[in-house]
Amino acid sequence: MAKLTGGVIPPMCTPLTPPRELDVPSLEKLTGHLLDAGVHGLFVTGSTGEVGYLPDATRHRVLEVVAGVAAGAVPVLAGVIDTATPRVIEQARAAARRGAAALVATAPFYVPTHQVEIRSHFRQIRAAVDLPLLAYDIPVSVHTKLAPETVAELAADGTLSGLKDSSGDLDEQRAVLETVDNAEFLVFSGSETMADTSLGLGAHGLVPGLGNADPHGYLRLHRAATAGDWTQAAAEQARLRRLFRLTQVGSRPMSRYSSAIGAFKAALVQLGVIEHGTTSEPMIALDETERAAVRRHLVEAGLLQE
Amino acid sequence: MAKLTGGVIPPMCTPLTPPRELDVPSLEKLTGHLLDAGVHGLFVTGSTGEVGYLPDATRHRVLEVVAGVAAGAVPVLAGVIDTATPRVIEQARAAARRGAAALVATAPFYVPTHQVEIRSHFRQIRAAVDLPLLAYDIPVSVHTKLAPETVAELAADGTLSGLKDSSGDLDEQRAVLETVDNAEFLVFSGSETMADTSLGLGAHGLVPGLGNADPHGYLRLHRAATAGDWTQAAAEQARLRRLFRLTQVGSRPMSRYSSAIGAFKAALVQLGVIEHGTTSEPMIALDETERAAVRRHLVEAGLLQE
Amino acid sequence: MAKLTGGVIPPMCTPLTPPRELDVPSLEKLTGHLLDAGVHGLFVTGSTGEVGYLPDATRHRVLEVVAGVAAGAVPVLAGVIDTATPRVIEQARAAARRGAAALVATAPFYVPTHQVEIRSHFRQIRAAVDLPLLAYDIPVSVHTKLAPETVAELAADGTLSGLKDSSGDLDEQRAVLETVDNAEFLVFSGSETMADTSLGLGAHGLVPGLGNADPHGYLRLHRAATAGDWTQAAAEQARLRRLFRLTQVGSRPMSRYSSAIGAFKAALVQLGVIEHGTTSEPMIALDETERAAVRRHLVEAGLLQE
Amino acid sequence: MAKLTGGVIPPMCTPLTPPRELDVPSLEKLTGHLLDAGVHGLFVTGSTGEVGYLPDATRHRVLEVVAGVAAGAVPVLAGVIDTATPRVIEQARAAARRGAAALVATAPFYVPTHQVEIRSHFRQIRAAVDLPLLAYDIPVSVHTKLAPETVAELAADGTLSGLKDSSGDLDEQRAVLETVDNAEFLVFSGSETMADTSLGLGAHGLVPGLGNADPHGYLRLHRAATAGDWTQAAAEQARLRRLFRLTQVGSRPMSRYSSAIGAFKAALVQLGVIEHGTTSEPMIALDETERAAVRRHLVEAGLLQE
Repeated sequence: MAKLTGGVIPPMCTPLTPPRELDVPSLEKLTGHLLDAGVHGLFVTGSTGEVGYLPDATRHRVLEVVAGVAAGAVPVLAGVIDTATPRVIEQARAAARRGAAALVATAPFYVPTHQVEIRSHFRQIRAAVDLPLLAYDIPVSVHTKLAPETVAELAADGTLSGLKDSSGDLDEQRAVLETVDNAEFLVFSGSETMADTSLGLGAHGLVPGLGNADPHGYLRLHRAATAGDWTQAAAEQARLRRLFRLTQVGSRPMSRYSSAIGAFKAALVQLGVIEHGTTSEPMIALDETERAAVRRHLVEAGLLQE
Repeated sequence: MAKLTGGVIPPMCTPLTPPRELDVPSLEKLTGHLLDAGVHGLFVTGSTGEVGYLPDATRHRVLEVVAGVAAGAVPVLAGVIDTATPRVIEQARAAARRGAAALVATAPFYVPTHQVEIRSHFRQIRAAVDLPLLAYDIPVSVHTKLAPETVAELAADGTLSGLKDSSGDLDEQRAVLETVDNAEFLVFSGSETMADTSLGLGAHGLVPGLGNADPHGYLRLHRAATAGDWTQAAAEQARLRRLFRLTQVGSRPMSRYSSAIGAFKAALVQLGVIEHGTTSEPMIALDETERAAVRRHLVEAGLLQE
Repeated sequence: MAKLTGGVIPPMCTPLTPPRELDVPSLEKLTGHLLDAGVHGLFVTGSTGEVGYLPDATRHRVLEVVAGVAAGAVPVLAGVIDTATPRVIEQARAAARRGAAALVATAPFYVPTHQVEIRSHFRQIRAAVDLPLLAYDIPVSVHTKLAPETVAELAADGTLSGLKDSSGDLDEQRAVLETVDNAEFLVFSGSETMADTSLGLGAHGLVPGLGNADPHGYLRLHRAATAGDWTQAAAEQARLRRLFRLTQVGSRPMSRYSSAIGAFKAALVQLGVIEHGTTSEPMIALDETERAAVRRHLVEAGLLQE
Repeated sequence: MAKLTGGVIPPMCTPLTPPRELDVPSLEKLTGHLLDAGVHGLFVTGSTGEVGYLPDATRHRVLEVVAGVAAGAVPVLAGVIDTATPRVIEQARAAARRGAAALVATAPFYVPTHQVEIRSHFRQIRAAVDLPLLAYDIPVSVHTKLAPETVAELAADGTLSGLKDSSGDLDEQRAVLETVDNAEFLVFSGSETMADTSLGLGAHGLVPGLGNADPHGYLRLHRAATAGDWTQAAAEQARLRRLFRLTQVGSRPMSRYSSAIGAFKAALVQLGVIEHGTTSEPMIALDETERAAVRRHLVEAGLLQE
């Protein structure tokens, strides 16, 4: 099976039918769309994949479908997102049985947790399931920040194989890159908008939600960065930063996710990749005006003809 | 089956064996201990019950055991705690099948959520499962506060039958009590330390974690309040406030829950109610010094002989 | 000079002329309005008095005017609000020279501060100026909460003579009341809406901004509480809770203070106490619709004829 | 007078004598130390300058002394830090009279403020005092983040000449750099540790507290960046990141500032620039062990011989 080595690994959207069942043909098409673009891996059941909304059976099916289409061509990472250790271990075991090449877990949430307990949490997950484990640092959801010292300690003892950093704190990301004493350890940026900067600091890969709609953009950015052409990387990033504004089309009372995940899915529909823009309950669906705004962003970014 | 009408409804601890399996005999004994004391209901799989740590199978078994022992004598409420609507509905259906008399659900967490979406969330849970639904307001875990207007609207349209308020915001609790235009709507305080004050403001019941160890104390407090003897209620509350300091015995690096839930369980062991003080991973276990401190609190509160 | 013993001590509004100079005649009239009502003290240059906006010269003049009118009949407390110890000591010395009977100071703000440093801060203020010192706990402005242990320690050693609690945390207010071992120590609630509850917990006085407009209401509430007539106190509180909604008349984009302080001043104008509703820059002025809404609240509360 | 054009502008420490009076000879020496190194400007009464602790008279004297030594060779920027508009305008007028070349002001703090009011706040300061105005974005102190749109609007209409960004949010810093449509507008990074990254994103200058102790380091970093030698800039930054750990020498209970400002001053004493390491009340003074740790950092960074 393909080894995880960095690069562009989009956190996949989870296509749903209007009655909110998993839309398997659309998921297969999305997988193909990303593989054809040349992504280095696929990340299922992450935040962009609506993992917080999906029942376990849907989470499992998503992984089976994507792993089936990928067929070992690239590693498939699975988000194993749950409130605390015993529940995360159950998610991890289920993912291991369904073909995950690596697991991505957050610190405990809902329950209050100390950094000492966070270390124990990751160690127990790693001990329970024999797959590479990445820590997912997403304080906006978890309401705890992983301290660079915590990450470094868990990298040093082999608990963690990598970090998916969605904290937005580039100073601490740099501290991790400086501190971790493990050549195999991989740092992935979860940012759509500071991807070139992260790569410039030494990050190994990108996990951008916007990469569902524009994998080629992030692959060009990554190639430019790998070639040391930072001017080209910044130019591509500038285009992607403008495109990323599509996540703000929802200006009615709705959560940030209703707007952002709704926009990613609306874009995938308009690009002909998936069939429906349906998002999970209780998110607010984008209306026609908002979908038209998504379309304008795609046209401006050169992804659609007017 | 007994109807939910307020009173003292302890959020039950979940006894575990040292290898962290459910300790069914201890759970049965704890249930009996609370029923014998005369509690008005039992609340399983709440925060005190380590719901955030328990796998689904354990959650289900806890409810079955407690509902079996209660046998309809008092209502058994079940916490159906998960990140967003579809997952909570699965929890709710599972609880309904296992004898829950009412459901207790929080707003979505982990995923960002708008108050508009929170209203839709509770409405869909209520529509999916035909059981009384209580909103669980616990911003320290959920990182969202339920606005009194949200609660009032959902009470008015019959979505919510009650509120378990663990927010600590008595001003907003009072606003709910003033605003809700539904004589059947029940407000429960989740506070161990301001129970008399809540009842004085018109709250209908108490859900105190400390009530595992001292149900008689909260029942005396509730009886005094019901009789309008606020001096007696305050005196009992003062004693319980001192006793509640046992939740702070853990002074090493550990989370607040490691100390508090560890202390509740240590107290139940020392009172002869359950067999083991074991808590879920990744909580830190109390050590001998800390357990001795719990013991001193029990002695001072008159619950144990020296 | 009158001694500080609790009771109702309104945090006075600071009347301004349209070009935002101190309106001395209106300030004198407001002082008389409150003294005639029978308040037990006056608190100038608090948050309701726009202290954060007022230049030092205006702060000083406010105190001189109010102390002059009060003429020792009741104690005049002065807010000495500044970022850290040396600046607060300057404010305190200026207030002492202008007739303050007691000083009210917050923990340092803007600068990060540890509880150890907070204790040192209050001790140095007390050592520098020989006047009773009250700690002002207002985390919404200061972004630090005074720990009950900090207050208790500073009460025990004579640093603090009292606490003005605007934290909204009644549990910790009760902890202070339980813990402080000093019979002279006074706890004041800064809440307009939970005043009866605070008095029921043992607080000694009230500092309600709404008391500018309705001092009689808070005095009736306080008298009922002092007489042990909690039903009457709660009824008065219920009326004042409804009246307090006037602070929410501003529904356009504006800060909470623009709406609340604007509403207090609009009420005072409509009640004929002060001349202008002008508030400090950069607050947004209430418009005619909002002022009409204030008027309706005053009529409903029985303070104005229709 | 020298024009403000970017570059390295250290936020100067404010040397104090042991009884906490301004140490004018040390301040003159520090000014000379920085001018000799070749800094492009000097920033007085910023956070590193203990502005939150300094009485007005000391703030004024600091500016006079530094402007006197600088004698127009480089621009002297003055922090005009106070809670709201009228108070900031007083600070601004005082600074203008004492030779400030530009003013640096935050959004209002202590008082709650809406983005609409923040815009009005900066416009009124600019209208009141005819000096270039920079917005100081420091949410850790002000508890409000300046929205990029707010900065862009105030840049477009000429209110703001620049931004000192101490928010740590490089994504929003980049948004400001992309959005501001004003070739004269200057963005300064307030970060010691991400200076090269900011310059890479297009920032025009640096305001690093650590630049008091090592101005040459930041000047080398800036020169390398200006020359497009990002490898060299990153190497210098890496050395400065290690040196910056001296701000964490204080491991006893104390605030972050006690440790960081104490460490900067201890470094300046050990480098022979200022006489005393004294910091303002209520900061905790570093002890001998902590000062020795500062020394080790200086030695490791090549600033001191062992």
